[in-house]
Amino acid sequence: MKNARLIIADSEHNADMLYASGMFVPDPFIAIELDGRWHGLLSPLEVDRATKVSQLAEVHLDTPWRNAAEIRDWPGLAGCAAAFLAAHNVQGISVPPSFPLRYADQLRGWGFELAASTDAFFPERPVKTEIEIKYLAQAERLTRQSMQQGEQYLGRCSIGNDNILRDPDSGKKVTSDDVRRAIETFLIGKGAMPAHTIVACGRHSSDPHNTGSGYIRAHELIIIDIFPRVLTTGYWGDMTRTYVKGKATTEQKKMYNTVREGQDIGLAMMAAGVDSRHIHAAITAHFDAQGFKTGTVRGKQGGFFHGTGHGVGLEIHEGPRVSTRGEILKAGHVVTCEPGLYYPHIGGVRLEDMVVIRDGGCDNLTRYKRNLEIA
Amino acid sequence: MKNARLIIADSEHNADMLYASGMFVPDPFIAIELDGRWHGLLSPLEVDRATKVSQLAEVHLDTPWRNAAEIRDWPGLAGCAAAFLAAHNVQGISVPPSFPLRYADQLRGWGFELAASTDAFFPERPVKTEIEIKYLAQAERLTRQSMQQGEQYLGRCSIGNDNILRDPDSGKKVTSDDVRRAIETFLIGKGAMPAHTIVACGRHSSDPHNTGSGYIRAHELIIIDIFPRVLTTGYWGDMTRTYVKGKATTEQKKMYNTVREGQDIGLAMMAAGVDSRHIHAAITAHFDAQGFKTGTVRGKQGGFFHGTGHGVGLEIHEGPRVSTRGEILKAGHVVTCEPGLYYPHIGGVRLEDMVVIRDGGCDNLTRYKRNLEIA
Repeated sequence: MKNARLIIADSEHNADMLYASGMFVPDPFIAIELDGRWHGLLSPLEVDRATKVSQLAEVHLDTPWRNAAEIRDWPGLAGCAAAFLAAHNVQGISVPPSFPLRYADQLRGWGFELAASTDAFFPERPVKTEIEIKYLAQAERLTRQSMQQGEQYLGRCSIGNDNILRDPDSGKKVTSDDVRRAIETFLIGKGAMPAHTIVACGRHSSDPHNTGSGYIRAHELIIIDIFPRVLTTGYWGDMTRTYVKGKATTEQKKMYNTVREGQDIGLAMMAAGVDSRHIHAAITAHFDAQGFKTGTVRGKQGGFFHGTGHGVGLEIHEGPRVSTRGEILKAGHVVTCEPGLYYPHIGGVRLEDMVVIRDGGCDNLTRYKRNLEIA
Repeated sequence: MKNARLIIADSEHNADMLYASGMFVPDPFIAIELDGRWHGLLSPLEVDRATKVSQLAEVHLDTPWRNAAEIRDWPGLAGCAAAFLAAHNVQGISVPPSFPLRYADQLRGWGFELAASTDAFFPERPVKTEIEIKYLAQAERLTRQSMQQGEQYLGRCSIGNDNILRDPDSGKKVTSDDVRRAIETFLIGKGAMPAHTIVACGRHSSDPHNTGSGYIRAHELIIIDIFPRVLTTGYWGDMTRTYVKGKATTEQKKMYNTVREGQDIGLAMMAAGVDSRHIHAAITAHFDAQGFKTGTVRGKQGGFFHGTGHGVGLEIHEGPRVSTRGEILKAGHVVTCEPGLYYPHIGGVRLEDMVVIRDGGCDNLTRYKRNLEIA
């Protein structure tokens, strides 16, 4: 009896499946690693395309295996996979942590021994090849260019007597949606798909997950966080800048400069072999030293209450983490460095770059200026 | 001891979680139904927003439950959920079929009895409320308007001597990407997110899942299939039209008219109480009678080899199915009616509308003309 590795998922949402197959398929299908080679079982709808464009070692039409499964009364995709596995003398199956329980219980019921990997299914995925780094750099280049679109749009806006920005063409009051449109229209035109781009002004910017809505006001902090996926490759970009249209207050400036210094500390520390928790700790210590404390004030979280960064690849959030939990950074990791400070009465500041970890340092893929004020 | 229902997922990709919580959260969190009320356990990053905008009956900060779990050495999100469930005297847990195996095995290891629902986790989800139908109609209206953008763009193109279309402004050769850009730029501007919009010309159109690439040629079949998600609501639109820029051949026209008749047959049959497999069979019979056979020709699938339709809601593909497998349609189901014919040497034709099943008939949400030729 043999062992195999099994994924049943679509590859639009499941990055492991995309990593294994190298092909976007919108509906769930089966991928099986047997003797070091990945086999795909695909529907009549997908099998031709898979033969042409996938990176699967073997592409099979799933119909004969579905038929074989039906004879044994094994239903659905799990049944189809089971028929293939049984015919190849497989008993033990390793699956990703996210493997659907329903399929797992079916396969166990039919006598297979099935275990979810306790960690990443592809431990090698966070370490990027140079081709993957090229794709990530391409995604980040588009992200940077779209940030410039947003920044230029804000630059062209005027400030009304009510401190609400006015659109340079229509003269209408400017909302988060208008800024978002300037950014996302550009990305779509370049074949990248944005997702819930954050354009959060004032009070909204103090909540890191608030995507932002309503009017954009002068002299208030505006966080813009853009994370599009390049459609042809599946890789993501991710960057954040914070702006004030008009004049920033002393308090806003001090917070901005402190975050920028924190980001510089993080970027300077990022290198292969470093425990990422020390990076997070160094930034937090700098914030504390500057008087920007983290904790709960009047029932609201304040300060720096998210991680410093995360891996980016076929998922927008993947390993390794740069946070209190820590992981040893390796050459080829691609991670964000995105410290932030958030206080309900001031707003939020976050600056985010994406870098490739190298021996002795890191390569910044974002390379975009950090200026607070837009005139 | 009590029973509970449990979801651990993000609500961007997991429609059950979005249905339970009514709120987009990009990272996995915990939702638990206890005594008929849904509780959410959310991170400090999300808890404020959840309190304001979610439809959860109770919103809890997850930190105390994480701490309680740590004392028992129960790690991660499954541990956090387990601490809450144990404190509420729960032993039996029902989870969705897609529930991650890793969490399931952890929870079972800690003594919980856990079972995946064999069918839909929310059997009521396919039957839409009037508010949901309003959201779906809104999504389909944007989809229709974006189709018009694509159609108008094709109308403005000229035909080169090489039969490749030329852009009306730049004079450059037109590709699938250009048509897609006309459609998707419009959608983004309206707050809807397209996903792999199909613009497939000629040979590409004979493969239903080919998103299309390369030049758009006159006198060849062009399938345009648009399925955007409205960002504020999470509901999808879905429609398909097929065009020929220039003059269609007799063969193309016959295929188009046959698919249109097939769609009319389907739309006329769609009503509450109907077994959807009869609808699929009636369309297939019509295609057969018109000489458009389904089967394998020279190793290629040809004819009508996908289902007639699928439910649409918080997922682009959900129940009920309209296919050989069949389900009884209910009032409030929202389904597509999208017959197609595909032959490698001719290309493909597909027409897709989205309808609400009612007693005695259906309401068409698409209401968009079906004309083959674009002058």
